[in-house]
Amino acid sequence: MEVVVLAAGQGKRMRSVLPKVLQPIAGKPMLAHVLDTARTLDAQRICVVYGHGGEVVRERLDAPDLAWARQAPQLGTGHAVQQALLHLTDGEMALVLYGDVPLIGVPTLRRLIAAAGGERLGLLTVEMDDPTGYGRILRNAAGDVTRIVEEKDATDDERKVREVNTGILVAPVARLRDWLGRIGNDNAQGEYYLTDIIGLAVADGVEVATVQPDAFAETLGVNNKLQLAELERIHQGNIARRLMEEGVTLIDPARIDVRGSLTVGRDVEIDVGCVFEGEVELGDNVRIGAHCVIRNARIGAGTRIEPFCHVDSTTMGQACVIGPYARTRPGTVLGSDVHLGNFVEIKNSVIADHSKANHLAYVGDADVGSKVNIGAGTITCNYDGANKHRTIIEDEVFIGSDTQLVAPVRVGRGATLGAGTTLTKDAPAGQLTVSRSKQISLENWKRPVKQPR
Amino acid sequence: MEVVVLAAGQGKRMRSVLPKVLQPIAGKPMLAHVLDTARTLDAQRICVVYGHGGEVVRERLDAPDLAWARQAPQLGTGHAVQQALLHLTDGEMALVLYGDVPLIGVPTLRRLIAAAGGERLGLLTVEMDDPTGYGRILRNAAGDVTRIVEEKDATDDERKVREVNTGILVAPVARLRDWLGRIGNDNAQGEYYLTDIIGLAVADGVEVATVQPDAFAETLGVNNKLQLAELERIHQGNIARRLMEEGVTLIDPARIDVRGSLTVGRDVEIDVGCVFEGEVELGDNVRIGAHCVIRNARIGAGTRIEPFCHVDSTTMGQACVIGPYARTRPGTVLGSDVHLGNFVEIKNSVIADHSKANHLAYVGDADVGSKVNIGAGTITCNYDGANKHRTIIEDEVFIGSDTQLVAPVRVGRGATLGAGTTLTKDAPAGQLTVSRSKQISLENWKRPVKQPR
Amino acid sequence: MEVVVLAAGQGKRMRSVLPKVLQPIAGKPMLAHVLDTARTLDAQRICVVYGHGGEVVRERLDAPDLAWARQAPQLGTGHAVQQALLHLTDGEMALVLYGDVPLIGVPTLRRLIAAAGGERLGLLTVEMDDPTGYGRILRNAAGDVTRIVEEKDATDDERKVREVNTGILVAPVARLRDWLGRIGNDNAQGEYYLTDIIGLAVADGVEVATVQPDAFAETLGVNNKLQLAELERIHQGNIARRLMEEGVTLIDPARIDVRGSLTVGRDVEIDVGCVFEGEVELGDNVRIGAHCVIRNARIGAGTRIEPFCHVDSTTMGQACVIGPYARTRPGTVLGSDVHLGNFVEIKNSVIADHSKANHLAYVGDADVGSKVNIGAGTITCNYDGANKHRTIIEDEVFIGSDTQLVAPVRVGRGATLGAGTTLTKDAPAGQLTVSRSKQISLENWKRPVKQPR
Repeated sequence: MEVVVLAAGQGKRMRSVLPKVLQPIAGKPMLAHVLDTARTLDAQRICVVYGHGGEVVRERLDAPDLAWARQAPQLGTGHAVQQALLHLTDGEMALVLYGDVPLIGVPTLRRLIAAAGGERLGLLTVEMDDPTGYGRILRNAAGDVTRIVEEKDATDDERKVREVNTGILVAPVARLRDWLGRIGNDNAQGEYYLTDIIGLAVADGVEVATVQPDAFAETLGVNNKLQLAELERIHQGNIARRLMEEGVTLIDPARIDVRGSLTVGRDVEIDVGCVFEGEVELGDNVRIGAHCVIRNARIGAGTRIEPFCHVDSTTMGQACVIGPYARTRPGTVLGSDVHLGNFVEIKNSVIADHSKANHLAYVGDADVGSKVNIGAGTITCNYDGANKHRTIIEDEVFIGSDTQLVAPVRVGRGATLGAGTTLTKDAPAGQLTVSRSKQISLENWKRPVKQPR
Repeated sequence: MEVVVLAAGQGKRMRSVLPKVLQPIAGKPMLAHVLDTARTLDAQRICVVYGHGGEVVRERLDAPDLAWARQAPQLGTGHAVQQALLHLTDGEMALVLYGDVPLIGVPTLRRLIAAAGGERLGLLTVEMDDPTGYGRILRNAAGDVTRIVEEKDATDDERKVREVNTGILVAPVARLRDWLGRIGNDNAQGEYYLTDIIGLAVADGVEVATVQPDAFAETLGVNNKLQLAELERIHQGNIARRLMEEGVTLIDPARIDVRGSLTVGRDVEIDVGCVFEGEVELGDNVRIGAHCVIRNARIGAGTRIEPFCHVDSTTMGQACVIGPYARTRPGTVLGSDVHLGNFVEIKNSVIADHSKANHLAYVGDADVGSKVNIGAGTITCNYDGANKHRTIIEDEVFIGSDTQLVAPVRVGRGATLGAGTTLTKDAPAGQLTVSRSKQISLENWKRPVKQPR
Repeated sequence: MEVVVLAAGQGKRMRSVLPKVLQPIAGKPMLAHVLDTARTLDAQRICVVYGHGGEVVRERLDAPDLAWARQAPQLGTGHAVQQALLHLTDGEMALVLYGDVPLIGVPTLRRLIAAAGGERLGLLTVEMDDPTGYGRILRNAAGDVTRIVEEKDATDDERKVREVNTGILVAPVARLRDWLGRIGNDNAQGEYYLTDIIGLAVADGVEVATVQPDAFAETLGVNNKLQLAELERIHQGNIARRLMEEGVTLIDPARIDVRGSLTVGRDVEIDVGCVFEGEVELGDNVRIGAHCVIRNARIGAGTRIEPFCHVDSTTMGQACVIGPYARTRPGTVLGSDVHLGNFVEIKNSVIADHSKANHLAYVGDADVGSKVNIGAGTITCNYDGANKHRTIIEDEVFIGSDTQLVAPVRVGRGATLGAGTTLTKDAPAGQLTVSRSKQISLENWKRPVKQPR
């Protein structure tokens, strides 16, 4: 099996600088979806046909398993497949896919490939309620496909046919080579249409086996941002359904966005408005509150993420309580039963079991032991304007509110820092360390009065 | 009137450790919805039939007004109702409900009960566009119900019947006892079906009175997470409609979630993405901004909640301005015209009229007077690592930025605290209190330079 | 062209203190939408008919180009238009619009006005799948409108007509004056119906030219909060579609709210749950993360707004990185490549190119130079309880964490402030300035122990 992916269209109607096939669905270029699908089919070769201005496509998605064929000028889909022929091997079957038809599914394609076995031509067709504008599949009395007729050439009766061509097909490479050499461009656009090979196949006595997709949306193409959004929502709906089938409780399947892979344990619940990006794993009984953004994270069993959290490149242990409004940045590693509260930011830090930072804090480039209490307003001063330094906080430390730890600095096991301390040297274990001025009151002080403007 | 609620199904297709009837709709177990509905009907007795592994159901929802009947093994719906008979009284009517049919409505049931008056059997049926798979209601020429035929036993003509059985019925207890003793289990599953009593009733000359629900969704059962989500949205849509009928302006009825009771005054406006939990009361002219989470709160007239607020177990007076990004935790009591700004957390504190905490602050275990200004970065150090202490801030106090109040501590009326003060002793009324070091500048100081890694 | 807008209805079913036509769609009163539409048509005169309790309407929306006619008592739509006649000029055409039909579109009205040219009566009609309750348009064999028949007066055949009256019409003022003087109120409600002029027009030999709207929703009226929400969503859907046609990537067109004008450059992407208010301009390649609220802002090319940001009356340069959880308040002006991080609030401040405030800070009434680093926990103490003062931070300053700048105060170019500094006097350029107490440790200190309650 070899795969040709047509990806040369500029997509002017997208009104974007980006070539059409790089427009994203679920945060990933449409073409990348198609390539991943092709890879799942274990294709021996995948050849992408790109066009004028398409170097950026090649740069962005190039990989060792891909061959690239440039189509310039662009003279139609038949011409496009022809550019790929150099990379294809006679004796193999070729599957033709489209970089702007991103939802085509592996099970559908497997059925199509199976149907095309034995030197048949496999053609994916679909029934439409309103086929206006699409090429109709014409069949003889025996039900065999005889040809495809375009809207403008169709008789009234032919226009009533609701089975249409999707353009996705499988054919023997040698045949394809032959047919593509024989099709013409004698039409309004002056283009070479891949569709025209169907008629040649029938004429050559090659059986055309048709297959219909598992879901209609698999055959939808994208030509503008409305269609892009439509497919985004269909794709997200599919993901939501799969999650629910795996047992996830989704409070609103229409309000979850997964851009990457989301792996879930048992009895996971996800509230409204959540966004998942990259690789995310949620353990058993994890609950994600409303309006969270979670990216590249592994979250342990029983951990509860309250609303409005922003979690990025983070590992969390079991039974943590996070948020609301907690933000963890790349390099955050939390043990079990860690509590992060509101307006707390953690970056590139390890926090061990049973430790807490419940309010208004910034912990960056720190190693925090277990059973540590980080008071409200605590800030690790990890950046001196030129370099970043680490802060070490050993087990069972209590850090008073509004404390600054000027890194590099170490707080010994069981130490206590008084509220408002600016810690510039290590704090000894077990002791209370403070930097504090005497509290004084000015008896005769007068408050400022409002000045006229 | 007595009620039997069948709640023994394990619900394997939910793919959850939790028994099916404990799966939540609007944050409340489905069975609890059905029990509350039964209670609204003033049932003399409510008997829940639970099954294997169902002890957790009983533990979670037990109440003095409930009787519990264990069904083990589970031999069908007829067998399930039979387990409840011990608790039922001859001479009464029995209503059979289902723990996994949570949206059944009181008005529908009242009509069903009324129809079953005079020793009739009342049966809730429903018209379906596609009745495939459901038991069809067969009637004679006079329109009387004669029997229910299951899909697999139905003739082609019978399959065309669109009126189907919902399983919800009302029957005289004595009759039920008799019929259930006579039904068999001579079917593919080897189960005793409650449905079979219909045929016996007809044979006994008992009239079967049918009633249709006010809304189709009332009869929907839940067998998997997709159906659970579907009913969640239907339920939320019903709540949204009711709120709009009461005059609430909802910017998007598809993007509000109410899990509990939401009571509203006049001219309330709720923006997109809000979640309400527990008992929430909103006074006249309250406006809730986008993406707020409000739980167990009473919010006074004219108060405005800006976007991204998280309000829990809080009472607010009139004309407050809250947020964006304000969080009030349990025990927060605000007077009127209180302003809480961004990144402010209040916990277990009382704040009197006209006081403000507009930026980045943590106020916990505090009593704050009126006309107090709490500066940015203010933190009440209420926890010494072992015990919590209260902070008292009297009227008209001005607290400078980045101040720590180490509780227990009192700030006297009209006192001013200078910025950066660590307050460890009481601050006298009317005076300026500070703890401050001399500001010095180091002339020959050199900034750190970037180190090579 | 003169326009009459009927806006006298109280709208009891809205269950609001606010008169119906002031109820908002996209944050703007319905009547204001209609008035703006009328203005786009270059009407010579716009006369609003208001009713009992409608003074608040006049106060709220009065403008030099409007005439106001009071209708009291309210005796029907014909009577309402009659009140406006005083302001209308014989020889002109009059267009009748409705304050509670807010989505009527300019292209539809232009077609209607064109159709009414040459002394014809132009009538906007619409085809409904279910016309029940609406006045049907009756036509003769030649297809000419003969009259409008109300539901209750219609024969069975007439009821089958699906073309109905919308009430929106254009007629010569002199004719209107004549016809309105002749219609009666001999009907169940005892009201004068504007509709009745159609029959008089036909009798007078005036041709009735009908036009259908571009979209059905243009003719929808609002009588309760459900319909208000329905039109809100239709309106937002229209805006979303327009944005996508302009090339914007919307991750979910059903989850964006625009209340005002949103102007976009190329390749703009907007994630789910965003709300735009007032005048917002987004430059090329701007990306707005999930759940942001943006009001009256100009955002430069390439700037990225992360999730949960709240931006108000702000100008941002190019390539800024903002948020998550950043809040900019009125008077914020950011240069290019400015970074604002989490839990940062900026108010009435100018921040020059390449400066950063990445964590937990409040910058108010400040002028911040370029390449400034504002540490976590920095607070400008701009308010002394009576007056606000400015803080000046010159280029290349480094402000250590948890610093308070007590305004008025100036930090000289290249100065460094040590962590925890309370800055009460100007900091000299190039030097390190601190206010710091000696760090001490208490060896024999014992931690508090948990007290029994």
